[in-house]
Amino acid sequence: MESNSVSPMPELAPIAEFDKTPPTPPEDTIPMDDLPPPPTVVTVANNSVEQEAETHRHYEEENEWGCGSWLEYTMVVVLASVLLLGSLALTLFWVIYYHNGFAWREDLSKQFNLHPVLMVAGFITFSGFSILLYRICRCCRRIYVKLLHTVFHALSIPCVAIGFMAVLDTHNLKRPEAIPNFYSLHSWIGLVTMGLFAIQFVVGFFSFLVLLCCEGATSAFRAALVPIHASFGLTTFMLAIAACVTGLTEKVIFTLGNSYSRMPEEGIIVNAIGMSLIALAILIGYILQRDEFRFRAHVLIRSGDL
Amino acid sequence: MESNSVSPMPELAPIAEFDKTPPTPPEDTIPMDDLPPPPTVVTVANNSVEQEAETHRHYEEENEWGCGSWLEYTMVVVLASVLLLGSLALTLFWVIYYHNGFAWREDLSKQFNLHPVLMVAGFITFSGFSILLYRICRCCRRIYVKLLHTVFHALSIPCVAIGFMAVLDTHNLKRPEAIPNFYSLHSWIGLVTMGLFAIQFVVGFFSFLVLLCCEGATSAFRAALVPIHASFGLTTFMLAIAACVTGLTEKVIFTLGNSYSRMPEEGIIVNAIGMSLIALAILIGYILQRDEFRFRAHVLIRSGDL
Repeated sequence: MESNSVSPMPELAPIAEFDKTPPTPPEDTIPMDDLPPPPTVVTVANNSVEQEAETHRHYEEENEWGCGSWLEYTMVVVLASVLLLGSLALTLFWVIYYHNGFAWREDLSKQFNLHPVLMVAGFITFSGFSILLYRICRCCRRIYVKLLHTVFHALSIPCVAIGFMAVLDTHNLKRPEAIPNFYSLHSWIGLVTMGLFAIQFVVGFFSFLVLLCCEGATSAFRAALVPIHASFGLTTFMLAIAACVTGLTEKVIFTLGNSYSRMPEEGIIVNAIGMSLIALAILIGYILQRDEFRFRAHVLIRSGDL
Repeated sequence: MESNSVSPMPELAPIAEFDKTPPTPPEDTIPMDDLPPPPTVVTVANNSVEQEAETHRHYEEENEWGCGSWLEYTMVVVLASVLLLGSLALTLFWVIYYHNGFAWREDLSKQFNLHPVLMVAGFITFSGFSILLYRICRCCRRIYVKLLHTVFHALSIPCVAIGFMAVLDTHNLKRPEAIPNFYSLHSWIGLVTMGLFAIQFVVGFFSFLVLLCCEGATSAFRAALVPIHASFGLTTFMLAIAACVTGLTEKVIFTLGNSYSRMPEEGIIVNAIGMSLIALAILIGYILQRDEFRFRAHVLIRSGDL
């Protein structure tokens, strides 16, 4: 069912959401209840003619979402996708080219290589695309986006689990002496990240999918949970990046030692992986902040399938 | 000048901002223009009696901002303050107790100790409080909060500058051979963080303070900039934390080497510093996301001193 059919909106309504100054539609033709919420930040009430003129300019521009906005939207989404895939590709290149690829149990150092690759795949690439979905699929039905969001996060679970087991095995099976677990800052940050990720997944799954069974009764609860889930989701992504950059730092120092300071090829590759993650942190933070990028959000929220 | 005196608000208006469902005030008594914006996320339009009853309940509760909200607000703000000061105190303890305190030029390893302490002071403690100010000073005039925000950020500039020079000196003056600069992931992240911090400071200073000279003409521009400045500010804070945890990882591995895995005291202290920074990342992200914590924002924004 198309959302518009549930609560028919007047033509003008969706535009107002992107208007930084409150539009002044003719109140006799549009019932206030049907108007989407104006943005929370700005309500300069005592406006003059000048302000009103600007309002109308915005109004027209944003109706068609201007060429500049489209260009910006396309650029940042493409760049984010390139970085999400690029950081995984670089990590793969690093462990295959400099550390001889993968193995399971036969060669512990090759088994360790699964750890960075699977953690980047799970915590960065899959989770990153899962977050981006809400900006990429701007015109799909919300329930499909939610399901796809769940599938992407669900895909990252086996990655993280196997990546975690790979490093535990490497430590425990090391001879002549096992390497202790959970002594480093990296491992502590990683544990916190996995914990937050698990909580977010369980709470999200039950609140936004299972509770849909009694849609009407839970809509207020689900609506209140949306910003919390979104905020902690971004925080989890940031923590994952912190875990990755500390892990990369550890690994590169243990591998290269003092020669790291002479900037060998491998050192530069590892730094490049880290910097692409940092670029992702900046870019994803920016994309999520831009309200304009979730064009039809209020229409879809209205349909009740939060 | 108290903001309320500029644009007198009806008694009920401020409450509506915290209401998760749109309140239905008697429209003949309250002009719509004077109402603060309802939250952007939720506008479940097709409501029944049940919904309306809930609306009124919220309405009353949030009028006095409930005991639970106050408790939560106080707890998170106090916890954040403790962590902001605690991480600095722990860093001081670490370098004084395990690395013999400070010096300038006489003893390079003691000069290096200035680096972690001043970077945590500038990028975490001062910047963190500067961000928190917008949640702590909920009833002051906005212009005072802005000035204090600028002062706190201005205080962090000398910290970061001297902290940066301390590590450059340590590298360049090292004998028999100088240590190269900017080879590690930590230094690259640090440079990006300093760059973003500088851009934020300059743009913020000119946009939100200097442009106040022609208040009316620039209000739309300044209003549009607020969410961008806030979002990049949080991103800069997160990057600063990423820079800190990579730096701590580097330093602890260079200092302790393989004995780090036996969890010596110093290793635990360094991990604790890192974890308090991670806790700050989670907590500051949470506090900034909670719209309720900026209680009187709309009243103050209305007065035009954005």
